[in-house]
Amino acid sequence: MTTIKELLTNYAAEFNARLNEFFPISTLPESRVVEAMKYSITNGGKRLRPFLVNETGKLFGQSFEKTLRTAVALECLHTYSLIHDDLPAMDNDDLRRGKPTCHKAFDEATAILAGDGLLTYSFEILSDERTAAPATRNELISLLAQGAGAFSGMVAGQMLDLYVAEHSKENTEHLIKHIEEMKTGRLITFACEAGAVLGQATPAERQKLKEYSRGIGIAFQIADDILDVEGNEAMVGKKLNKDEEQGKATFVSLYGLEKAKQLAKEYIEKAKDALAIFGTSGHTLHQLADYIITRQK
Amino acid sequence: MTTIKELLTNYAAEFNARLNEFFPISTLPESRVVEAMKYSITNGGKRLRPFLVNETGKLFGQSFEKTLRTAVALECLHTYSLIHDDLPAMDNDDLRRGKPTCHKAFDEATAILAGDGLLTYSFEILSDERTAAPATRNELISLLAQGAGAFSGMVAGQMLDLYVAEHSKENTEHLIKHIEEMKTGRLITFACEAGAVLGQATPAERQKLKEYSRGIGIAFQIADDILDVEGNEAMVGKKLNKDEEQGKATFVSLYGLEKAKQLAKEYIEKAKDALAIFGTSGHTLHQLADYIITRQK
Repeated sequence: MTTIKELLTNYAAEFNARLNEFFPISTLPESRVVEAMKYSITNGGKRLRPFLVNETGKLFGQSFEKTLRTAVALECLHTYSLIHDDLPAMDNDDLRRGKPTCHKAFDEATAILAGDGLLTYSFEILSDERTAAPATRNELISLLAQGAGAFSGMVAGQMLDLYVAEHSKENTEHLIKHIEEMKTGRLITFACEAGAVLGQATPAERQKLKEYSRGIGIAFQIADDILDVEGNEAMVGKKLNKDEEQGKATFVSLYGLEKAKQLAKEYIEKAKDALAIFGTSGHTLHQLADYIITRQK
Repeated sequence: MTTIKELLTNYAAEFNARLNEFFPISTLPESRVVEAMKYSITNGGKRLRPFLVNETGKLFGQSFEKTLRTAVALECLHTYSLIHDDLPAMDNDDLRRGKPTCHKAFDEATAILAGDGLLTYSFEILSDERTAAPATRNELISLLAQGAGAFSGMVAGQMLDLYVAEHSKENTEHLIKHIEEMKTGRLITFACEAGAVLGQATPAERQKLKEYSRGIGIAFQIADDILDVEGNEAMVGKKLNKDEEQGKATFVSLYGLEKAKQLAKEYIEKAKDALAIFGTSGHTLHQLADYIITRQK
């Protein structure tokens, strides 16, 4: 039987093999920014979000091919957020997945532009007629822009995260959950909802996938916070213990390691419960939920 | 008779009065990024691009209201590009239209996020059902993303501009035209094409508006280069003579002042010729073309 780790690895390989089509490099000097975009997006990500688009799409009869463009658009958006978060004015990180971050491999101006280019490209990919029917494309664009945006999406989450770090605000449960939901949760929700939108799921099915996404989203963040404390630096591929050094609000600093682990398990159980509506078809998503809190990187 | 300057001022006032609706500020700490976005977009721009959306829309019976959301989306995108261009790692400018640039008024991290937020918001606004019919929205999003993007759009133009400055490449006509077309021209083309898309213009009408946009686009850039040399710093509201100090390729450094002025006039004539198809309805766009090379800021 294929394990969830193998399924993820196989999907990532298939997904990676298709990225070349999306990033044509020319000999023109301006192509440097496309090189930087490609450098960052091919930098060994787990492809968790694209995998979720593909797996939720499968529940409604969507093929790898039918979900691919949406999956690539989402990964572009995710990659832009990593490039900008790593910048000196933000988290100032030199390494990402064991390799130099974009502004280290290129330069700061190119990294800012590469992030801008990837963000813009997400919407170019989604708006293309090859992606889906017109109304579906608009819905995907609208959901992605809201989830990534400055009002209650990813950009708002990053702003709040910076604010809390600077003002050493009390590390409350409400605050770190709010940051998590906006900063990472909403893109994971988009990943799960996109498959439902592409596959024209019923409102009830879509609601269940959103519940699932919230459960794995929080658990994923808790697991990240735990890895920052317990992980193996070589395996994780980035500097660890940063949260504590920066006095950052995390689930671990709030609850301690043991309770954080317990909490992650509870969220994973909730996520799995939400899959009941899909019967045996939800098996892979079920396995994925368990994997999220056992992964080592 | 109302002069074109008055028409522009009146439109800008009406446009500005509607911006509040688009930028609700809350008391939540993450709203700081929305404040920064609003600070930059309300920073006294001429609203040339929104005006073009409105005027080209009018040719096909579109009202102020019908074109407003597209005009705001485009101004969001334009404003994001100014915020990121002003960053220390890019042009490192402290003043924009006589006021502190976003990273000076706030801080660098907030300015990066404000740019990201505005870029994302452009697509959120366009994808909303209030903007237009589904197929029209997709077309607008696709055109804007391509025009602003990293392959041959604005981001590519900024990359090439940085590359040329760094490598002190020979200041060829081909090179500065290529930079201009990508860096500023394509958004001006979008502004003129958007009205045609919203108003379901014929392919011939649309083509003529694109020709018009190319003429005023190049002339606008030449006029900017001239203002950088001849302008009044207090009136223009930013540091001048920067191009020369940075050894930047401009139309003026290439042709000299007199020939640059002559060239701008020729492009304006070409732009006006393209309006013939619209008869007297093209009067305002005709006046605008002349204004572009006589403006003092």
